Amino acid sequence: MDAVIFKGPFEVAVERRPKPEIIEPTDAIVKVRVSGICGSDLHAYRGHQKTEGGYIMGHEFVGTVVKTGGDVKVFGPGDNVVSIFSPCCMKCWYCLQGLTNRCTFGAAFGFKALDGGQAEYVRIPHADGTLRHAPTGLDDPLLIMMADIFPTGYYAASRAIEALHTQKLSRLTSFPKDSSTSTDLQSLTADSVLVCLGCGPVGICAIAAARSKGIKTIFAVDSVRDRLDEARDLGAIPLQLGADDIGEHVRAATEGRGADGVIELVGNQEALRSAFDLLRPAGVLSSVGFHQADLPFTGLECYLKGLTVSFGRVPVATVFDAALECLKENEKALRHYVTHELPLAQAKEGYQLFEQHKARKVILCV
Amino acid sequence: MDAVIFKGPFEVAVERRPKPEIIEPTDAIVKVRVSGICGSDLHAYRGHQKTEGGYIMGHEFVGTVVKTGGDVKVFGPGDNVVSIFSPCCMKCWYCLQGLTNRCTFGAAFGFKALDGGQAEYVRIPHADGTLRHAPTGLDDPLLIMMADIFPTGYYAASRAIEALHTQKLSRLTSFPKDSSTSTDLQSLTADSVLVCLGCGPVGICAIAAARSKGIKTIFAVDSVRDRLDEARDLGAIPLQLGADDIGEHVRAATEGRGADGVIELVGNQEALRSAFDLLRPAGVLSSVGFHQADLPFTGLECYLKGLTVSFGRVPVATVFDAALECLKENEKALRHYVTHELPLAQAKEGYQLFEQHKARKVILCV
Repeated sequence: MDAVIFKGPFEVAVERRPKPEIIEPTDAIVKVRVSGICGSDLHAYRGHQKTEGGYIMGHEFVGTVVKTGGDVKVFGPGDNVVSIFSPCCMKCWYCLQGLTNRCTFGAAFGFKALDGGQAEYVRIPHADGTLRHAPTGLDDPLLIMMADIFPTGYYAASRAIEALHTQKLSRLTSFPKDSSTSTDLQSLTADSVLVCLGCGPVGICAIAAARSKGIKTIFAVDSVRDRLDEARDLGAIPLQLGADDIGEHVRAATEGRGADGVIELVGNQEALRSAFDLLRPAGVLSSVGFHQADLPFTGLECYLKGLTVSFGRVPVATVFDAALECLKENEKALRHYVTHELPLAQAKEGYQLFEQHKARKVILCV
Repeated sequence: MDAVIFKGPFEVAVERRPKPEIIEPTDAIVKVRVSGICGSDLHAYRGHQKTEGGYIMGHEFVGTVVKTGGDVKVFGPGDNVVSIFSPCCMKCWYCLQGLTNRCTFGAAFGFKALDGGQAEYVRIPHADGTLRHAPTGLDDPLLIMMADIFPTGYYAASRAIEALHTQKLSRLTSFPKDSSTSTDLQSLTADSVLVCLGCGPVGICAIAAARSKGIKTIFAVDSVRDRLDEARDLGAIPLQLGADDIGEHVRAATEGRGADGVIELVGNQEALRSAFDLLRPAGVLSSVGFHQADLPFTGLECYLKGLTVSFGRVPVATVFDAALECLKENEKALRHYVTHELPLAQAKEGYQLFEQHKARKVILCV
């Protein structure tokens, strides 16, 4: 079969590889229809994440089940599916806690440990936990968002909003004069001011999710004009890095306090420091960016700000249903999000376009 | 009047000072009956927190209102009160959000900006928000805990438990097969394994609060044997720094995973690093320690662990009622917590005893 192989920094190639076979009875084989190129593929592509080459790339894919192992109960040949970006067994302690991103058997598709889905076929470990039946009415360019970027954006936004909700709830518990006030998440957090740092694909999904959850004021920060246009179309206030005074805009919207929450999706020290500086005292930071360096704030700064911060990636299986509902609500706005549909053979060009910000989202059609 | 004056590192003195007067119409003057020495007084006392001397120390005190400004509505002369450790106006944006620790007019008692309560009298700004009527049936050694250490410990524990609750709730939302399961905080978090790093006064209060909230397994870590005895009496499992292999005990209790939550109350890099290492993936860290140095973990470590961490101090006004209920539940266990009641004139000795861990808790009787 044809497969996209990572050769080294800025080098991918379509090569012939053997078709994958069932290894464990919990495996399934999926014939891939469409595979996405994700921002996190660029960590390896750009050489930021050191990794030996030779494996099949890609952790976003949709397709059809063609073969299943003897222990697969939920799926069978012919099923139209989307895969979560890393396997989850749904049986280990972490999966049973809903921390499916920490599954004992977890290993992201598209790295050395587990071949990915930018290929004609892909082997799915723990298929019953890892796959999801494709919902009717969602075409592939939207469906593929459910493999990673939409749940990731949804989670990044939800985590910030839930932390603000918890903060607000404690006030209501102690000041019962407000007992007529609704305690639901949307009522309590709608007036919170959020900043989304980074408006690539995940940022766009985070903004869509935050809007669906009722947040009225979201500042969208990026350097790429096209991304800011997309963010504006979703109802965010675009601010361009290098052109706009981000802090000034955020302070003007908050009587000088700073943002209630920041969603950080960039993954470098500068972005994380901006996030910290943009937050008001006791603000909340949801960081999904893949950070490699030291944290750019001291213990004293964290103490004095009263910071709450969450790091790390999404448990897709746990948020899947809620995220899917949210994606459907935003279907119209996200319908044209995929700007480039290329044949698998043009994977190299796809990576180049995406890496150079010449494409919003690239998918490879097998 | 007599007052305890901070002179410089390891030096306090009882000196004569003018009695405070009403300055603002929202002020009250309190005649102090008992004033506590708190662990956070030691930051300045030990010279870790650089501060010019000359002010009256102390932010824990109970006493009787003797005079009020024209705008004070809730309190009048003769009222028996406990004061929150820093003023809160209950009118600014932060106070109205329940973030009373961030009150626009907030400034801790017992520092340069605001004279403290280790004195015969103390001026209370924003008295209607800052003071609380002393509940009946609570004698001074327990009541004074409500100024700072009990709400602080309560908050440190609650913050960790609430974050674990949020984590567990998201599982229930997505796996509705468990719909018979109760979603309340206690049902969902009782089996969580917590570690309390630092078992000084605040640690003891945090352990009491975590036990009251139903947590069954709490490891109490300290180097001081007497503190560990107290922690054990409250139902925690004592582990002595330097003698016990802390990580080994925690892993043995969690099938090798690590703690679900860590409450960190020490305030140095070593403790914060231990907290990080003791946590399981996606664990939660509640840090109340006053940190001055860099954070001892990298962005990559935070991302890979999926860490959630909250820093900073308690909004006492917001948690006061709930913390008071919790204190009452633990009244019997905490009744003998104050080991030294000294006259104000012996403040110097009191600081020495406390600083050298020869006293659990010292209060100064005026």
